[in-house]
Amino acid sequence: MSDYQKLLERWGIVSDLGAADRLLDWDEQTFMPHAGADARGQVRGTIVLLRAQYLSSPETLVLLQAAEKEQQGAAAGSDELAILREIRRDYERAVKIPPTLVAQKAQLCSTAHIAWLSAKKANDFSIFQPYLEKIIVIERKRAELFGYEAHPYDALLPDFEPDMSTEELKGTFAELKRRLVAICQHPALQNFTDDTVLQQDFDPDEQLQFSRRMMRHVGLEAKHGRLDTTEHPFMTGIASPFDVRTTMRSTTRFDILSALHECGHALYERGIKPAYFRTPLNEITSMAMHESQSRLLENHIGRSREFWTYWYPRLQERFPVQLESVSLDSYYRALNKVGPSFIRTEADEVYYGLHIILRFELETDLIGGRLSVADLPELWNERFEALFGITPPTSSQGVLQDVHWSSGSFGYFPSYSLGNLVAAQLYEKILVDQPSLPQDLALGDCSSLFGWLRTNVHQHGRKYSARQLVKNVTGKEISSDAFIAYLNAKFGCAAD
Amino acid sequence: MSDYQKLLERWGIVSDLGAADRLLDWDEQTFMPHAGADARGQVRGTIVLLRAQYLSSPETLVLLQAAEKEQQGAAAGSDELAILREIRRDYERAVKIPPTLVAQKAQLCSTAHIAWLSAKKANDFSIFQPYLEKIIVIERKRAELFGYEAHPYDALLPDFEPDMSTEELKGTFAELKRRLVAICQHPALQNFTDDTVLQQDFDPDEQLQFSRRMMRHVGLEAKHGRLDTTEHPFMTGIASPFDVRTTMRSTTRFDILSALHECGHALYERGIKPAYFRTPLNEITSMAMHESQSRLLENHIGRSREFWTYWYPRLQERFPVQLESVSLDSYYRALNKVGPSFIRTEADEVYYGLHIILRFELETDLIGGRLSVADLPELWNERFEALFGITPPTSSQGVLQDVHWSSGSFGYFPSYSLGNLVAAQLYEKILVDQPSLPQDLALGDCSSLFGWLRTNVHQHGRKYSARQLVKNVTGKEISSDAFIAYLNAKFGCAAD
Repeated sequence: MSDYQKLLERWGIVSDLGAADRLLDWDEQTFMPHAGADARGQVRGTIVLLRAQYLSSPETLVLLQAAEKEQQGAAAGSDELAILREIRRDYERAVKIPPTLVAQKAQLCSTAHIAWLSAKKANDFSIFQPYLEKIIVIERKRAELFGYEAHPYDALLPDFEPDMSTEELKGTFAELKRRLVAICQHPALQNFTDDTVLQQDFDPDEQLQFSRRMMRHVGLEAKHGRLDTTEHPFMTGIASPFDVRTTMRSTTRFDILSALHECGHALYERGIKPAYFRTPLNEITSMAMHESQSRLLENHIGRSREFWTYWYPRLQERFPVQLESVSLDSYYRALNKVGPSFIRTEADEVYYGLHIILRFELETDLIGGRLSVADLPELWNERFEALFGITPPTSSQGVLQDVHWSSGSFGYFPSYSLGNLVAAQLYEKILVDQPSLPQDLALGDCSSLFGWLRTNVHQHGRKYSARQLVKNVTGKEISSDAFIAYLNAKFGCAAD
Repeated sequence: MSDYQKLLERWGIVSDLGAADRLLDWDEQTFMPHAGADARGQVRGTIVLLRAQYLSSPETLVLLQAAEKEQQGAAAGSDELAILREIRRDYERAVKIPPTLVAQKAQLCSTAHIAWLSAKKANDFSIFQPYLEKIIVIERKRAELFGYEAHPYDALLPDFEPDMSTEELKGTFAELKRRLVAICQHPALQNFTDDTVLQQDFDPDEQLQFSRRMMRHVGLEAKHGRLDTTEHPFMTGIASPFDVRTTMRSTTRFDILSALHECGHALYERGIKPAYFRTPLNEITSMAMHESQSRLLENHIGRSREFWTYWYPRLQERFPVQLESVSLDSYYRALNKVGPSFIRTEADEVYYGLHIILRFELETDLIGGRLSVADLPELWNERFEALFGITPPTSSQGVLQDVHWSSGSFGYFPSYSLGNLVAAQLYEKILVDQPSLPQDLALGDCSSLFGWLRTNVHQHGRKYSARQLVKNVTGKEISSDAFIAYLNAKFGCAAD
């Protein structure tokens, strides 16, 4: 066995432990009896610790160095070199954080999460404040250990976006903000203000059945994927590309777009080259790229008139009481209602970006030490008012609304907006390559769309960075051009 | 931290890896998309290997020896000493089998299982024969590595019955056989020959709902347990005593007794003292003791007139078409139909023991080298005919019916019959301690039964051997006396 093969075998163990943890997590959120929670926490703690130990052990480094030497002659661009590059990246990041700090953060976030839930319920930021302060201390410590040049936030970003700097994000988001604000003020948006048809009650089980049907339709067969219900929708690749799972809410609110969103994530992981299984390439390349796939399915497809030309009569059949007398046009405009609102996850395509930019600005200042946690609620409301023209009436509808900070995921938010930009860039290119796509969708055929995505995006897994992949496919850097053009065209606004 | 505590911490990792594997297994059998099977096999292989490595590593021995020294002054009968005893037992068994042989057996059994399925489907033993021959070779090798004095089968038994010898089983089973054959010939059995009312179709989902209701009733709350459907019913303690799960078939055949059977297993693991969590005492003490709990609920309760005095009207309500005009007495006698049949899992309480004895005799001869696999089918049919008076028309209904040999579980079968004997011994004692139990059951109250079982049996986990526990509780050795007395009383046969 070559050193390279030995290294892959070792990485296989790291990969298997990750798969076990994902199943433990999925089960925790779907079917686990509640009394099992503490025991589950313990089991997951062990699995995550063993994974970290295997990944960052001296044996891994010895094998990695030997394998790198062995593969010196490999062709540039080969899978072998990409695999070695990504193992080195994971190893070097893992080895910088002592296991005690990993455990400390896990434990803190577990209690912080509970404090956040209480704070949100009680509308009282002060309950969460001491926990958030401790999390910021740990995040700054992690940033120091990882090392950085310009901004400590740069050291945290690679957990989500391996190939992106704070400086660059600031530039991209400044431009995006300017352009979004212009669209928000455009009178054409007046055509998209009424979503009362979606404010009706929709039976949760009927929504689930309908969403499962759509899931099969877009290419996730039962033998490869599941769709269940949970408190918060999510997608996880238990063993991508073979076993990918999504969830949606069990609610009477209209939740089918969130099912499509998670399906977009699932299709990405379902599409990774099977030969990459148990290698580091068998993963999504960045959270932005992951979000680009979910947002593409949710927005470019799931909020398009063409898609619903085929599906809306079927939806009407399923929900005759609610939709029989509602025209496709009314339904389409309800799906695309635009306007300021307090909750990010309920935001439309235009305002969504502003929600992210607010968070990005606040969290870079928190991590940069230029903003204290105590001042956060006030600053949140001030800046929200400046961006949206409305002020959150409660902290639950403001600073306490998102789970991310309680779980220590600083650096995650930018990926959401980058994902929207990338989705628009990819969709623009798809329409060039396959101009008949809108007609195909109207006839109920998604196969050319997903064939294109698999060939150009999904199959590569982590082989290319998000930036490189977008460049390879579209010939362009990541920017807001395509996204803004898409919004302008969709909502009938003049170009900015 | 004391060495004892360090040892417990290390055993906690072994325990957590076991829990992860049980969830991977449960999911594989319940909800996993089929295409995930190969990846799942790989993940489970890794988890099982890591568990074996942690258990049998030199560090474990060093800690164990230090902890044993540290606890030399502990009181006889203390939990600490029992924990050390059981860790040593697990360690010493694990260390005797090289990981390569563990992997070799796992791989062989995985292919043998598929060959067995094909052989069973095709009614052709020769498809399975070469695999079974290899499995016997491995089992004999394992027996040599474990070491034994009288019979190689003695070395395999401890996987299921830590405290039992082949010689002793031969004695117990010889007497049981004589007594069962006497009952089989008794004319009183003529009152229990008609189960046509149970041969009707019962809606699978209604059976599931009804079984879930019974499960809650016997004390398994939703926050601690689940009941789902699978191809083959099973119970697994994902994290006993907090999270225990059972399954039943999704079939139109009447399958409620098998749900009760699995509930009996689940109640055992649900009842283990929470303080034993992540120690070796947090396990059932033997498969016979496990079976005693499932058979007690299935037979002594689930086939009793008293239990159904309360439940039968509720069952009739659920299945009016099938049962409205069927009296409790007819239903009771259908549940207890006695007669020779080919399939062990469908056998009644009387003939079941003969099925086990047949297998025990054959597998001790196979492991002892006194019977070749090639001669097995013929010998099966000959001995079956001698015991049951009927000859299996096909190998699927004969030698190929059970999964156990294809999974290399030699030594498992005796536990089933021992479980029946122990169940009867325990139930005899319960009726002495709580003479009002039959009336309680008729009024729909199981709480005194499960209170008794928890106090006397469940809570102890692996602290006492099955033999010791039966002795502690009933004052007697394991024997067929109580079981035979129970059958004689139930079916109205004269004492033998």
